[in-house]
Amino acid sequence: MNYPSKLIGDAVAEFKKLPGIGEKTALRLVLHLLKQDSAKVENFSSVIATMRSQTKFCITCHNISDNTTCSVCANPMRDKGSVCIVETIREVIAIENTGVYNGTYHVLNGLISPLNGITPDQLNIDSLISRIREQEVKEVIMALSPTIDGDTTIFYISKKVQSLGVQITSIARGISFGGELEYTDELTLGRSIATRMPYESYLVKN
Amino acid sequence: MNYPSKLIGDAVAEFKKLPGIGEKTALRLVLHLLKQDSAKVENFSSVIATMRSQTKFCITCHNISDNTTCSVCANPMRDKGSVCIVETIREVIAIENTGVYNGTYHVLNGLISPLNGITPDQLNIDSLISRIREQEVKEVIMALSPTIDGDTTIFYISKKVQSLGVQITSIARGISFGGELEYTDELTLGRSIATRMPYESYLVKN
Repeated sequence: MNYPSKLIGDAVAEFKKLPGIGEKTALRLVLHLLKQDSAKVENFSSVIATMRSQTKFCITCHNISDNTTCSVCANPMRDKGSVCIVETIREVIAIENTGVYNGTYHVLNGLISPLNGITPDQLNIDSLISRIREQEVKEVIMALSPTIDGDTTIFYISKKVQSLGVQITSIARGISFGGELEYTDELTLGRSIATRMPYESYLVKN
Repeated sequence: MNYPSKLIGDAVAEFKKLPGIGEKTALRLVLHLLKQDSAKVENFSSVIATMRSQTKFCITCHNISDNTTCSVCANPMRDKGSVCIVETIREVIAIENTGVYNGTYHVLNGLISPLNGITPDQLNIDSLISRIREQEVKEVIMALSPTIDGDTTIFYISKKVQSLGVQITSIARGISFGGELEYTDELTLGRSIATRMPYESYLVKN
């Protein structure tokens, strides 16, 4: 598409680079910003730049943070004996927003994926091992996606961690609350019967 | 939602202000930018800010422009005798990209809408009238949406313009190329039969 102004064309091209944003949406966003006060757009632009340049990653768990240690690791009330292993920061945010977990995290920053050429040394696995060795970690919770890559990563980490004497658990798999049995895939339904849990623990979760 | 970093939370809040972008999408965009090179994000941010601060509006037709006169009005090859009236810059871009129109534009920057309190004096109508008076405008093409507001605006402008001795036309309404007769609404189909055109003009348009 051609634009009557190079400035507009450049801005559309920048928005188009973002995931899930095509040319028409990019133009809509640009024309929206063009209608806003100069100060608001200036603020938008500077907040984004500051976010990229000043966001740090926690030296312990690799979570995003405003300081060198993230708010979870710095919190003395959090149980340092429990480490929840997640793929990205997104899962940290999701789990934190449930408000039920009081332990710490470890962000792998990806999953082992032989097909995509991602090997264990590209992930934050070494720092996990030294963390378990140095701190008093009692439990490692695997909170990874149930995909081939996720299962490969769980298998690799559990092999590495086993000898260190920590308990390895996984988040519960089963029918989601509000999920209809009828429409659940066979694997999940089958496994949810095989790994059925005492009625009391079901009540606690509610 | 709570975010482990205030910087991330602020950036998400900024993206959320854009039309059609919710919290989850905003977070996805922010985490995407966080993974990019600093220089790239810096560039994204500065292009947006420059776009807002430096984009000008053409003094003649109110189209966006890098200068005080837009590329259409500044082009000596364009037919200044023909003025196409559109609601926003978006329609200018759309018509320009068809490559079939060789005249000029006039961006109203909205439509007359009594229900939304938008009166003719809030739109670029006065500048249109003086343009017709001062320049040799022979034809005014109404390219507005066929809504109540669009029809009101067309009616108002045509009343104002009639006495100035210019020809008033409207873009053709009918079945779109590729549109199926069966699924066309009754009004469009009925009008397209009533306002049928010579077969020769159909061929020309192809």
